[in-house]
Amino acid sequence: MKLKVGILGATGMVGQRFIEQLNDHPWFKIEALCASERSAGKKYSEAANWYLESRIPDEIADMTVEKIDPAVSDRLDFVFSAIPSDIAKDIEGGFAKHIPVFSNTATYRMDEDIPLAIPEVNPDHLNLVNVQKENRGWEGFIVTNPNCTTIGFITPLKPIMDAFGIDWVNLATMQALSGAGYAGVPSMAIIDNVIPFIKNEEEKAELEGLKILGQLRDNKIKFADFDVFASCNRVMVRNGHTEAVFVRTQEDFRIEDVKEEFSSFKGEPQKLNLPTAPEQPVIVMGEEDRPQPALDRDLGDGMSISVGRIRKKKEKLLKFTCLSHNTIRGAAGASVLNAELARAMKLI
Amino acid sequence: MKLKVGILGATGMVGQRFIEQLNDHPWFKIEALCASERSAGKKYSEAANWYLESRIPDEIADMTVEKIDPAVSDRLDFVFSAIPSDIAKDIEGGFAKHIPVFSNTATYRMDEDIPLAIPEVNPDHLNLVNVQKENRGWEGFIVTNPNCTTIGFITPLKPIMDAFGIDWVNLATMQALSGAGYAGVPSMAIIDNVIPFIKNEEEKAELEGLKILGQLRDNKIKFADFDVFASCNRVMVRNGHTEAVFVRTQEDFRIEDVKEEFSSFKGEPQKLNLPTAPEQPVIVMGEEDRPQPALDRDLGDGMSISVGRIRKKKEKLLKFTCLSHNTIRGAAGASVLNAELARAMKLI
Amino acid sequence: MKLKVGILGATGMVGQRFIEQLNDHPWFKIEALCASERSAGKKYSEAANWYLESRIPDEIADMTVEKIDPAVSDRLDFVFSAIPSDIAKDIEGGFAKHIPVFSNTATYRMDEDIPLAIPEVNPDHLNLVNVQKENRGWEGFIVTNPNCTTIGFITPLKPIMDAFGIDWVNLATMQALSGAGYAGVPSMAIIDNVIPFIKNEEEKAELEGLKILGQLRDNKIKFADFDVFASCNRVMVRNGHTEAVFVRTQEDFRIEDVKEEFSSFKGEPQKLNLPTAPEQPVIVMGEEDRPQPALDRDLGDGMSISVGRIRKKKEKLLKFTCLSHNTIRGAAGASVLNAELARAMKLI
Amino acid sequence: MKLKVGILGATGMVGQRFIEQLNDHPWFKIEALCASERSAGKKYSEAANWYLESRIPDEIADMTVEKIDPAVSDRLDFVFSAIPSDIAKDIEGGFAKHIPVFSNTATYRMDEDIPLAIPEVNPDHLNLVNVQKENRGWEGFIVTNPNCTTIGFITPLKPIMDAFGIDWVNLATMQALSGAGYAGVPSMAIIDNVIPFIKNEEEKAELEGLKILGQLRDNKIKFADFDVFASCNRVMVRNGHTEAVFVRTQEDFRIEDVKEEFSSFKGEPQKLNLPTAPEQPVIVMGEEDRPQPALDRDLGDGMSISVGRIRKKKEKLLKFTCLSHNTIRGAAGASVLNAELARAMKLI
Repeated sequence: MKLKVGILGATGMVGQRFIEQLNDHPWFKIEALCASERSAGKKYSEAANWYLESRIPDEIADMTVEKIDPAVSDRLDFVFSAIPSDIAKDIEGGFAKHIPVFSNTATYRMDEDIPLAIPEVNPDHLNLVNVQKENRGWEGFIVTNPNCTTIGFITPLKPIMDAFGIDWVNLATMQALSGAGYAGVPSMAIIDNVIPFIKNEEEKAELEGLKILGQLRDNKIKFADFDVFASCNRVMVRNGHTEAVFVRTQEDFRIEDVKEEFSSFKGEPQKLNLPTAPEQPVIVMGEEDRPQPALDRDLGDGMSISVGRIRKKKEKLLKFTCLSHNTIRGAAGASVLNAELARAMKLI
Repeated sequence: MKLKVGILGATGMVGQRFIEQLNDHPWFKIEALCASERSAGKKYSEAANWYLESRIPDEIADMTVEKIDPAVSDRLDFVFSAIPSDIAKDIEGGFAKHIPVFSNTATYRMDEDIPLAIPEVNPDHLNLVNVQKENRGWEGFIVTNPNCTTIGFITPLKPIMDAFGIDWVNLATMQALSGAGYAGVPSMAIIDNVIPFIKNEEEKAELEGLKILGQLRDNKIKFADFDVFASCNRVMVRNGHTEAVFVRTQEDFRIEDVKEEFSSFKGEPQKLNLPTAPEQPVIVMGEEDRPQPALDRDLGDGMSISVGRIRKKKEKLLKFTCLSHNTIRGAAGASVLNAELARAMKLI
Repeated sequence: MKLKVGILGATGMVGQRFIEQLNDHPWFKIEALCASERSAGKKYSEAANWYLESRIPDEIADMTVEKIDPAVSDRLDFVFSAIPSDIAKDIEGGFAKHIPVFSNTATYRMDEDIPLAIPEVNPDHLNLVNVQKENRGWEGFIVTNPNCTTIGFITPLKPIMDAFGIDWVNLATMQALSGAGYAGVPSMAIIDNVIPFIKNEEEKAELEGLKILGQLRDNKIKFADFDVFASCNRVMVRNGHTEAVFVRTQEDFRIEDVKEEFSSFKGEPQKLNLPTAPEQPVIVMGEEDRPQPALDRDLGDGMSISVGRIRKKKEKLLKFTCLSHNTIRGAAGASVLNAELARAMKLI
Repeated sequence: MKLKVGILGATGMVGQRFIEQLNDHPWFKIEALCASERSAGKKYSEAANWYLESRIPDEIADMTVEKIDPAVSDRLDFVFSAIPSDIAKDIEGGFAKHIPVFSNTATYRMDEDIPLAIPEVNPDHLNLVNVQKENRGWEGFIVTNPNCTTIGFITPLKPIMDAFGIDWVNLATMQALSGAGYAGVPSMAIIDNVIPFIKNEEEKAELEGLKILGQLRDNKIKFADFDVFASCNRVMVRNGHTEAVFVRTQEDFRIEDVKEEFSSFKGEPQKLNLPTAPEQPVIVMGEEDRPQPALDRDLGDGMSISVGRIRKKKEKLLKFTCLSHNTIRGAAGASVLNAELARAMKLI
């Protein structure tokens, strides 16, 4: 028996990726597609302007879009959320009173009793949901996944931190257009151009990772203790965030060891063989001019992060470039993997 | 009486920018256009595929392209060179036996008796030409300008170094297509893509600046003593290199002071009022989403470097984004300004 | 004494081009910048997100934006309008009660007493304003310029029609992003893509030209009598509409004669030497791979239309490709030239 | 037992598509990868710069590239050819002496005893190979497929011609970058641009279709008798040629009938259920803004041609826009389908 799930914000870019990720999913079945009043009542294929290269699954195309209302919870085991952060406080909270919410939205991420999780990195943080339910008197709970930029560089930093420790990180990103939503970046703004600013993005990239890489002790997360300094830039790429990462480690390292740490890195999703877990969370590219978004964003069905340009400047000074699919590994796919992990942990 | 100049490599992308920069120049007059055997003997307008938005100046269009031969020196006061680095050793050396060479090519840049100069940053290094002439027995000399990436971030670093000192620099670039020459980057390689690799570019960016920011003492340059670690990336932009610069300073700073150092920075070209010197070498952008190549690359007729996104993470930790026109300030314009400075210093 | 003009819709893409075209204009002076309630009361530099490569003229930057209200007419000699067509009926009509309106908006274009004019093509149609004033009891009047697509191919068709007659025209366009306004085309919609549809564009392109090429007799326009069939497409270009034009002529022609008709074509603006009239309205490109938007859109300061790929398939069957700057010759520049012509005709 | 095939020009763009199309093919097995001297002797994965989003099949990656030499024929049942047209005369002829050649190259296309075939359109033309073998004394033969532009509009024109007849066609194309080969179009040439010229393309598009739509009688092809007039343009799209087609029919039509003719069109590949035949050769798009290359080029695994914007201007005057994947349906896929048809016809 598959679990019945709803998607909040089903017509947007990330909502569409949720549908794609859940198509033929062995554990989960889409039961409700929820969106704004404007879309409610329409057939999904009419309400949504489908942006993906894949086709709308037939059984989804004919479903009727519903408005976003916690009453829908009665028919569902849990929901995924891809709603705008300014309306998420009440809506996600409203749903969590009844059923679990796996959210791609920023609103609750930094709350201290809310897990902000990457299954390969901090699976144990999911246990916060028990405290959370008690704190808030909810029957359900909220589990969040990080911002698309954060997940891209924090995942490969995990094995580096474990092996060598981290003193500081400088990060410069070249981010895809889809991260701003379908109509987020006008073509006139980006043709023959780079935009060195994405609202709130540097702040998120600098903060979220420290929670994720933090230690869960006595139901509290002790944040990781190093500085991240970020420069976030928008470039003319459809999908795939490319990130240059400079790291000062605590112990010295050899390049070969760094490559080995990346390549051999596995987490719970791989051990548990979760349905959408990539075989390798981090893939080291052999070529000197990779990773490239056009060629590598779909590795591991968009769930692997590719890494290259690994260089050592001097003792303890490391640089690499990583690439992740921002609307799969960086959004819908991250949330689905969180739900799969929660299922394996019997939290749902 | 204007000085008579030749352009070596006159038909290429940088060669065309030389022609544009020298059009109606008050001190210099183009007397010879030299290019490969394939072009020699043709009218310039037939030999060159003109890539710029400006028109070919009429008197240039009808000039006959000559082959690159030091014998041309007889008719010239000096030459500009934009020839490929693999053939520059002999050719530039051959010309320098007779007349001065202002070169945009990498070949001689790191030789210890060759000035690698940005007029606003290290004008005194031009005095190396006297040692050079003696060392090499040349009647002429070679003055080089840095790689387009180097000049973009080293220029704004000069006032920072003078005011606060520098411990280290991390650099991530988003570089324009024109930097690779007209046919350097196939469209298939870059559409919907970022390429995180430019051959030899990180090495140049990490090394050249230390010479430029070094001290000339007893006819030797003592290199600046800090590490630059660079990640060089190609993006879908016609002209204009955008660079994210992370700096650890030696003294602490206030953001306002950094802005003031940038804005008030002037060098010899400004003091001497050289013909192509921009009023401001470094311009601080007021908007949070600038500089942008499409909007700001032509500031100061392509000779100003625009700076924005100035942030402080914590004590002594600075970040900014700078933008420079890579084929003007980063190539032909840099070389012309070097020649103007040399003229003002009575070296030519 | 310069005439005092207002710009309706001053903050948008075409409004900005109006400001650019009127900067240092010898006959006209901007006296009022009018825009939506949201912008009214702000300094122009704060109200407008300036999109052009040129800088905002200093004296414009500090002007206060006013709301769009016919009461402004008291201070003005006439206005230019670049407001959305859905609000133009009342607003342009409201202004025309008092003063002349030169409008880039579609609303009034096809009204039978409203001139739809290209100064080089149908300058006599401006005389309709007298009938119009009488018909409508207005003290002012409305003169419109055509859609950006229309002006691009109808201008070069004028000398062809005069020389050889026209039986039919098939038109396929590749239109720039700026034609849809700054935020009109999301980058996600057009990266690595062509969109074969622009709302209402084919209809305008098929109809407007027949009025423009029509005969004014007894205060009525007899439309030109041939079919235009259009396919309008959006491509990844910032500015400049490229149009492939297939024409069946009534008389046979020689290629050389077609080129000569294009090159020698001059209209009233050239004869009267109007301030923004290009020396050549139509320029024949010599190279087989031109015109190209990136290289040729700014010819004649954006007011010339460049033509190339002129081929004859067989008797009476002609094809050429033309390029025009869609926000200059195709919008603001067209309107300003209409006003200049009206001034020369002493209509204002 | 699968037939053993070789690929001539295996490392280029079309060569790579051949490998992709033949991966796991039920009838054919790649036995030899032939390329230039420069690549010969290397492992395929080292010799080829793989450009496609798919991965190199493992068994292909390790194959050794051979030089292009008819001696290879001994081990093969037939070859596919994607070699440059300037060397194809001797090489393809050399192979055809021994074994069949299915060629994507232009060289032999217009020879009167060489089939130029689209399996859905003129399958009977394959019978020309018998005459050809006799004429030329070859044991093998050559079958060609058309230029990528030709196949895109000629395929949907087939049902139109059969139903309504054709008087003339005007064609304007917006062609993808991949059509010029990987390094064919420099990024500097096409960023923010359209190029209204592709060498020899208009000539091919105007001529090839008339042979394809011609009648085979008494071992001779009587060309179709109407004019095609073409304007070929390059736009910033990775894959997928978009083509605006204006048709004057001989009989009048209704729009619904045109749609029905397109949708119901099937050819031999569909009847024979050939392995790579798309279910529908021509797909009518329901939305007014389709087909679009980014969304529709992969329909039918790149073998379907999508059609939209179907309009009638007046009696007998039709316009539609069609889109085809230029390196699949327009190149390698076309050739593979020809070979499948030949197999079904027992010609190989």
